Amino acid sequence: MRPDNRKPAQLRPIKITRDFNIYAEGSVLIEFGNTKVIVTASIEDKVPPFLKGSGQGWITAEYSMIPRASETRSLREVVRGSPSGRTHEIQRLIGRSLRAAVDLKKLGERTIWIDCDVIQADGGTRVASITGAFIAVADALIKLEKNNLVKSNPLKDYVAAISVGKVNNEIVLDLNYQEDSKAQVDMNIVMTGKGEFVELGATGEENTFTYQELQKMIEYGKSGIERLIKIQKEFIEGVPSLGHWERKNIKEFVYKE
Amino acid sequence: MRPDNRKPAQLRPIKITRDFNIYAEGSVLIEFGNTKVIVTASIEDKVPPFLKGSGQGWITAEYSMIPRASETRSLREVVRGSPSGRTHEIQRLIGRSLRAAVDLKKLGERTIWIDCDVIQADGGTRVASITGAFIAVADALIKLEKNNLVKSNPLKDYVAAISVGKVNNEIVLDLNYQEDSKAQVDMNIVMTGKGEFVELGATGEENTFTYQELQKMIEYGKSGIERLIKIQKEFIEGVPSLGHWERKNIKEFVYKE
Amino acid sequence: MRPDNRKPAQLRPIKITRDFNIYAEGSVLIEFGNTKVIVTASIEDKVPPFLKGSGQGWITAEYSMIPRASETRSLREVVRGSPSGRTHEIQRLIGRSLRAAVDLKKLGERTIWIDCDVIQADGGTRVASITGAFIAVADALIKLEKNNLVKSNPLKDYVAAISVGKVNNEIVLDLNYQEDSKAQVDMNIVMTGKGEFVELGATGEENTFTYQELQKMIEYGKSGIERLIKIQKEFIEGVPSLGHWERKNIKEFVYKE
Amino acid sequence: MRPDNRKPAQLRPIKITRDFNIYAEGSVLIEFGNTKVIVTASIEDKVPPFLKGSGQGWITAEYSMIPRASETRSLREVVRGSPSGRTHEIQRLIGRSLRAAVDLKKLGERTIWIDCDVIQADGGTRVASITGAFIAVADALIKLEKNNLVKSNPLKDYVAAISVGKVNNEIVLDLNYQEDSKAQVDMNIVMTGKGEFVELGATGEENTFTYQELQKMIEYGKSGIERLIKIQKEFIEGVPSLGHWERKNIKEFVYKE
Amino acid sequence: MRPDNRKPAQLRPIKITRDFNIYAEGSVLIEFGNTKVIVTASIEDKVPPFLKGSGQGWITAEYSMIPRASETRSLREVVRGSPSGRTHEIQRLIGRSLRAAVDLKKLGERTIWIDCDVIQADGGTRVASITGAFIAVADALIKLEKNNLVKSNPLKDYVAAISVGKVNNEIVLDLNYQEDSKAQVDMNIVMTGKGEFVELGATGEENTFTYQELQKMIEYGKSGIERLIKIQKEFIEGVPSLGHWERKNIKEFVYKE
Amino acid sequence: MRPDNRKPAQLRPIKITRDFNIYAEGSVLIEFGNTKVIVTASIEDKVPPFLKGSGQGWITAEYSMIPRASETRSLREVVRGSPSGRTHEIQRLIGRSLRAAVDLKKLGERTIWIDCDVIQADGGTRVASITGAFIAVADALIKLEKNNLVKSNPLKDYVAAISVGKVNNEIVLDLNYQEDSKAQVDMNIVMTGKGEFVELGATGEENTFTYQELQKMIEYGKSGIERLIKIQKEFIEGVPSLGHWERKNIKEFVYKE
Repeated sequence: MRPDNRKPAQLRPIKITRDFNIYAEGSVLIEFGNTKVIVTASIEDKVPPFLKGSGQGWITAEYSMIPRASETRSLREVVRGSPSGRTHEIQRLIGRSLRAAVDLKKLGERTIWIDCDVIQADGGTRVASITGAFIAVADALIKLEKNNLVKSNPLKDYVAAISVGKVNNEIVLDLNYQEDSKAQVDMNIVMTGKGEFVELGATGEENTFTYQELQKMIEYGKSGIERLIKIQKEFIEGVPSLGHWERKNIKEFVYKE
Repeated sequence: MRPDNRKPAQLRPIKITRDFNIYAEGSVLIEFGNTKVIVTASIEDKVPPFLKGSGQGWITAEYSMIPRASETRSLREVVRGSPSGRTHEIQRLIGRSLRAAVDLKKLGERTIWIDCDVIQADGGTRVASITGAFIAVADALIKLEKNNLVKSNPLKDYVAAISVGKVNNEIVLDLNYQEDSKAQVDMNIVMTGKGEFVELGATGEENTFTYQELQKMIEYGKSGIERLIKIQKEFIEGVPSLGHWERKNIKEFVYKE
Repeated sequence: MRPDNRKPAQLRPIKITRDFNIYAEGSVLIEFGNTKVIVTASIEDKVPPFLKGSGQGWITAEYSMIPRASETRSLREVVRGSPSGRTHEIQRLIGRSLRAAVDLKKLGERTIWIDCDVIQADGGTRVASITGAFIAVADALIKLEKNNLVKSNPLKDYVAAISVGKVNNEIVLDLNYQEDSKAQVDMNIVMTGKGEFVELGATGEENTFTYQELQKMIEYGKSGIERLIKIQKEFIEGVPSLGHWERKNIKEFVYKE
Repeated sequence: MRPDNRKPAQLRPIKITRDFNIYAEGSVLIEFGNTKVIVTASIEDKVPPFLKGSGQGWITAEYSMIPRASETRSLREVVRGSPSGRTHEIQRLIGRSLRAAVDLKKLGERTIWIDCDVIQADGGTRVASITGAFIAVADALIKLEKNNLVKSNPLKDYVAAISVGKVNNEIVLDLNYQEDSKAQVDMNIVMTGKGEFVELGATGEENTFTYQELQKMIEYGKSGIERLIKIQKEFIEGVPSLGHWERKNIKEFVYKE
Repeated sequence: MRPDNRKPAQLRPIKITRDFNIYAEGSVLIEFGNTKVIVTASIEDKVPPFLKGSGQGWITAEYSMIPRASETRSLREVVRGSPSGRTHEIQRLIGRSLRAAVDLKKLGERTIWIDCDVIQADGGTRVASITGAFIAVADALIKLEKNNLVKSNPLKDYVAAISVGKVNNEIVLDLNYQEDSKAQVDMNIVMTGKGEFVELGATGEENTFTYQELQKMIEYGKSGIERLIKIQKEFIEGVPSLGHWERKNIKEFVYKE
Repeated sequence: MRPDNRKPAQLRPIKITRDFNIYAEGSVLIEFGNTKVIVTASIEDKVPPFLKGSGQGWITAEYSMIPRASETRSLREVVRGSPSGRTHEIQRLIGRSLRAAVDLKKLGERTIWIDCDVIQADGGTRVASITGAFIAVADALIKLEKNNLVKSNPLKDYVAAISVGKVNNEIVLDLNYQEDSKAQVDMNIVMTGKGEFVELGATGEENTFTYQELQKMIEYGKSGIERLIKIQKEFIEGVPSLGHWERKNIKEFVYKE
C-alpha cells in the first residue's frame, strides 16, 4: 500500500491556477498533491550570444526552492554562492523539454525565460515544473500570436512529464517525497502530445533494475503523461500544423483520480 | 491624486493568509495591494557561533524575490553569485525588527529563521515582510509555549512596519511601486504595539527634506502602523507581562479602508 | 559622565589634513578623535552603463577598513570574498549623501569615485567619511571649474554627517567606539548647509525609543552638523547660485570644543 | 556510412593501459578511439560528514578536461570559478555507477575518489570514464583485500557504460565527437556484469524519439556493454559471492572489432 | 648521497614525446624522472584587451595538476574556487619565460596559450613545463611560418629552465620531490640559448644562504640548462637572425646521464 | 640621469614614523620617497591548523593598496572577488622574509599578522613593506619579551629589502614608479643583518640579462640593504645570541643621502 493510499499507477490530485502572477506573459501555480510550483514564462526580445543573428529563438529555465519548501529548512543557494549540481540538472531538463515543443525558428530572436519557484516540495517538483511550464509558455506564445508578433504560433505540440519509480520492489507512478526518498529506482519521463519521448532517465541509486522493470516503468509513465496532457487541454487547444493555438477561458482546474 | 485613487494617508487593501506553508512552524502569505510575500518562520535548535553557550537565542531573516515578481524579469541573485547590497540591508532590517519584539534570553539557544520570499512586488515588500513576519514568528513561539519548550512565551510586543514618502511634493503613506520609483523621499518606520520606535530611516535620494516634512512623515507612519497592529490582533493576542500569547482561530483576514 | 569626559552634546576634537594624497583630484585625512579616515575623490571621464548617453554624471563611494584599524584585528574583506552587508550599507549612504550636494547634470558624463579608507576606527567612521568626502569632492570640482571643464561648478551645497545615540539612557552626540558598542539606539544624520535633511536613520538594536527621545536626538544632530559645516567653510567657500566655489588656502585645521 | 567507416553497432578500437600513474591505488589510461582519459582511484581513510559513524564507505568522482582536449581550446573551469552544470552531471553519473558495483558497507568508513581527467576528447568521455574507473577501483579494492584491510572484497559486479544515439535517422553505437555533435538523440547506458541496468538516460535535444527507436537503442547499448565487460575481464576476475577478486597479470590491452 | 644515487650536478633521465595531443598546434609530454607534464600550445587569432590594435601578440600560460599527480591526492583548484597563489606564480613565470624567447611584434595580433597539465609530480614541474613549452611553442610557430601567416618566424632563441637547491647543506641540481620538500634553499633559473638569464629566483624558506652558495647554485643551473637546450636542439633548429626555424623529424627522445 | 636626479646607487629619502597606529602591537608608517606604507604587526594567540600542537609559531603577511595609491585609480581587490596573483606573490615574499628573521619555535603557538597597506605607491612597495615590517615585528616581540610571555626574544636578526633594476641599460638602485615601469630587468633582494640572502629574484620581462649585469645588481642591492639596516638600528638594537632586544626611544627618523 502506498503512504497516501494510492494505487500503483494512480496520480495525486492535480490543481492548476492560471495567471497566478500579474506581470508575466504566462504563469501558473501547479500542484501535484502537496508539491506546489509557481511557473512564469517571460519573453525577452533578445537571444544569448551564440544565437545572435541566427534568426532563431531560445528557451531557458531556472529552478529554485524557497528554503522552507520542505520538512527541514534548506540553505538558500545564493548563500552557498552558486546553484547546486541538482539545480543545474533540473534547469537543463526543463529547458530541453520545452524546446522540444516549440519551433525556435518561428519564435524569432526572442528568449523565453521559464522560472520555476517551488514553494512546497513533496516529490516530483521537476515534472510538475515541466507540466506547468507548458501552459505558461503556451499562454505567452498565444499572446505573441494574437499581437501578430509571429507569423504563426511556434508551438509544435503539448509536452508533459511524470516520475515513476521502484519502491519496496513495486513499480509506482508519481512518487511523493516519502516514496522518493526510499526509491530503489527513480525515473523521469517527458513526452509529447503525439506520444513521442523527449527525455527518459532512469537511475538506480545503489541499485540496479531489470529489463522487465524498465519496460513496466515506461508503460506507467506513458499512461500518466497521457492523463496530464488531457489536463493541459482544458487550458490550451491548438492545431500545430496551422500554427494556431487557442487559450480556453478557464482560470483554475482541479483533477482527481 | 494617487495612481490608485487613495487618499494620502490611506493604506492599500491588506490580506493575510495564515499557514500558507504546511511545513514551517509559522507561515503567512501577506498582501499589501499587489505586493505578495510568503513569510515562514523556522525554529532551529542551535544558535550562531557567537552565541554558543550564552543561553540566548537569535532571530535572523533572509529575503528574496522570484525573478518575475516585478514588471521586468530580474536576474536571480544566485546567478550573480551573492546577495546584493539592497538584499543585505533588507535582511538586516527584518532581523533587527523582529528581535526587538522577542526576548532572546527566554527563547533559549534556538534560532528563528524568517524567510521572506516575494512572489509579487508592487512596493513596500520590506514592510509587508516585517508585518507578516510578526504573525509567523508569533505562531512559531506559541507552538513552543504550548509544547512547554519555553517557560514563558518570549514574545514581548507586536511589531509592524510601513513606508511613507514624499511624492510630487506631497507626503503619502504605503507607496506602491509607481509612487516609490519617483519618490523624492523614502521612509520606513518600524514600531511596536506600545507605540515605540524600533527603526526609522528616511532617505532623500538626490533630494532633501525639511524638518516639517520629517514630522509629517513620522505622524503618517505612526498612524499606519497602529492600523496594522490592529490587523495582527485579529490573529494573535497576548499578555506579554504574563509571558502568554494565544493564537486566535482565524485562517484569513482581509482589510480594506 | 562620558568615557572621555565630554558633555552630552560635545564633539570630539576634529582634525582635517588636506591633500594627504598626491595623486587624487581631492583628498583629506579626517580625524574625529581617534577615528582616522583617508578620503580621496577621483574623477573618471565615464559613467556607469545606466547613465551612458544621459549627459549626467554619477558619484559613487567605496569604504574599507585596514585590518588593524580597531582593537582586534579583523579579516580583510577580500579574504572573505565580498564586501559585508555593513560595508555595502555604508558605501550606499556615502554615495547618496554626496550626490545630494552635487548637481549631476552639471557634472556631465563623469564619475566621482570617493574612496574612504579607515586607518583607525574609534566610532563614527561613516559620518567622518561623509564630512571629509565633502572637502575632497569640492576640491576635485573646483579643479574642474578652474580648468573650464564644466560651465559652472556642480556643487550645490555643503553636506556633513554626525552620529547621535542613546547610551545609558542618555542622549549623546558623536559616539566613540566604547559608547557605540553599548548604545541602546544608534542614529546617523546627514544634513546640508541649508539645514535640510539628506538622510536620517535611527536604529534600536534590541531596544526601542520614544517619540521624545527621537526629537532630542534630531536636535543634537542638527546642532553638531552646523558646527561641522563651519569647519568645512575653513577650507571651501562658494556661491552655489553662481556656480562658483573657492578653495581657501589652508592645509590643516584643528577644531576643539 | 559513419565518418570512420564503422558499422552502426561497431565499437571504436579500445586500449587500456594499467597503472598509468605510480601513486594512485588504482589507475588506467583508457582510450575509445581518439578519446583518452586518465582515471585514478584514491582511497582515503575517512568519509563525508553524512556518513560519519555509519560504518559505511563512499565513492565519489571528479571529472575534468584539459583545455586543449578538444579541437578548440576551452576555458579551464577554475578560471570560470566553478564546475559547469555538465561537469556536475557527469561526476554524479560516474559516482552513482561505481557505487552500484561496490558494497559500501563492506568498504567500511573509507572514501574512494575517482578522478577522470580527459586529455583528449572525441566523444564518449563519460562512458570511457566509467568503464575505465571500474578497473581502477577494482585494482584499489584488490589491494585492500590483499592487505587484509577488509574482510572480503566489497566489489559486487562489473560495471561498464556506452553511448548510443540517433544520427541521420539511424541508430548508432559509441558515437565519436563528429556524430555526437549532430545527434538527434543521445543516450548513455550503464550496466552491470549480470546484465542489469544502473542508469539509462536518453535525451532528444530539440528532437523526439519513438518507442521503437528507444527499444533499438537499448538493444545496441546492451550488446556494446557486454563486449566492454569482456575487456574488463582481461584485467580483473572475481567471485563476488566469495568476496574475492583477482588482478590478472596484464599491463595493456588493445581491442579492435 | 642523493636519494636516487645521482651526483650533485646530475640531471634525472629526461624523455620528450612530441605531438602527444592530436588537436594542439604544438604539444609534448615531457618527463624529468617521474615528473610528467603534458604541454600544449594553442594559437588564437586575438589578443587580450590591453593589446588590441597594437599589432603585437601575447603568450600566456596556465598550469594545473591532476589531483593524484602526487603521493597524496590534492584538492582540485576548481573545488576551492580559484587558483592558488602558487599556481598564479608558476603561470606568470612560464608566460614570462616564453615571451622572452619570442618576438611578440612579429607574432602579430595572436595569443599563444600554453597549457601545462601535470599528470605526475615528482619535483621540478615548473621547470619541466618551461623546457617542454619551448618545443610546443616552437612547433606552433613553425606551422605559422610554413603557412605563411607570419613574414618571418617570431622565435628569437631557445629557452629552458632548471631547479637548483641546497639540501643537507649541499648544492644539488634538478631536485626531486623528496629533496625539494626538505630543501634549505630553492632556486629556479631560466636561461636562453645564448646563455643569458631570463629569470633567477632563490628563496631560503626559514633559511638564509651565503654569497658563495649563491654563486655555486648559479653555476650548476647554467650547466644544467646548457644540457637541456641540447635536447631541445634534437627537435628544433633555427637561425633566429633569418627568422627561420626547422622542425626535425623526431617523435620521441630519451636522455640519460 | 635618473628622473629625480639620483645617482645609480643612491637611495631615495626614507622616513619612518613609529607607532603610527594606536592599537597594533607594533606599527610604522614607512616612506621610500613618495611610496608610503602603513605596516602593523598583530599578535594572535593561535596558529594555523597545520601547526596546532607543534609548539611553534607562524608569521603571515597581507598586502593591499588603497585604490588611489597610484596615478590612476585601481579597482579594489574585494570588488574583483579575490587577491590578484601579484598580491599573493608579494604577501608570500613578505611572510617568508620575516620568518627568516624570527625563531618560530621560541615564538610559541602564536601568529604574527603583518598588514602592509600601501597608501601611496611610487615603486618599491614590497621592499618598503619588508623593511618597515621588521621594526613593527621587532616592537611586537619586544613587548612579548617585556611581558615575560616568551623566555627569550625570538628575534634572530635584522632583515631588510631593496629593489635593483636595469633601466636604459644602466643598473640602478631603489627604482621609483617611473623607472620601474620601463625597467628591462627587475630585481628584489632580501638580506639579513649578517649579510646573508633570504631571497633574490631577478626577472627580465621580455628581456634577458648577462652574468655581469647580475653580479652588479647583487652588489648594488647588498650595499643598499646595509644602509637600510643601519636605519633600523636607530629604532631597535639587540643581542640575538642572548635572546634580548631593546626598543630605542625614537618616534620618527628621516634619512637622506
